[in-house]
Amino acid sequence: MEVRSKIWLEENGKLIFGEGKSKIFKAIQEFRSINKAAESMGISFRHAWSYISEIEKRTGVKLVERVKGGAGGGGSRLTEYATEIMRKYDILKDKIDNYVDKKFKEIFD
Amino acid sequence: MEVRSKIWLEENGKLIFGEGKSKIFKAIQEFRSINKAAESMGISFRHAWSYISEIEKRTGVKLVERVKGGAGGGGSRLTEYATEIMRKYDILKDKIDNYVDKKFKEIFD
Repeated sequence: MEVRSKIWLEENGKLIFGEGKSKIFKAIQEFRSINKAAESMGISFRHAWSYISEIEKRTGVKLVERVKGGAGGGGSRLTEYATEIMRKYDILKDKIDNYVDKKFKEIFD
Repeated sequence: MEVRSKIWLEENGKLIFGEGKSKIFKAIQEFRSINKAAESMGISFRHAWSYISEIEKRTGVKLVERVKGGAGGGGSRLTEYATEIMRKYDILKDKIDNYVDKKFKEIFD
């Protein structure tokens, strides 16, 4: 028997951040482009964008911003707020995963 | 912002116990009848029964047994195995809920 867990963040009872969003955020951070991030995940730009804009509406905070010009011809990047939420979520998730495994062994073994 | 979490148990990648099952088990324990348990949850007997028999198939262990005769004219009760899994799941869930809240406050405040 194995234990599984899931954690996510809500604002007024609505999802604002979880594993799925975390993957999109990470891909945007890596590719600096929503289009490439979506492609890497096998989802459409429209899908990725609707994810982001939905959370922006719920939190009232900008999550992704356009970067103009430069060698790569511009692109998108996470705002400081989005980077922070992602970083904190990762720390929280990591701690909880470890705790869940430890307690599961203690209680079920 | 609030944190939410979910934990469940799997056997070979398939759900065997989680919040939904826990509610059915608790209702069977209370009413000593699958029918009354299902009624109290607003689901059909068929639905409740398929939940139980599915987990029985996955684990290969009996979870609910018939009780014959007696003042109440018989009924159903959880097996020792089912009672134990429910008890352990509750302890695990309780510990994890507390931990998640604590860590969320530490990391996000």
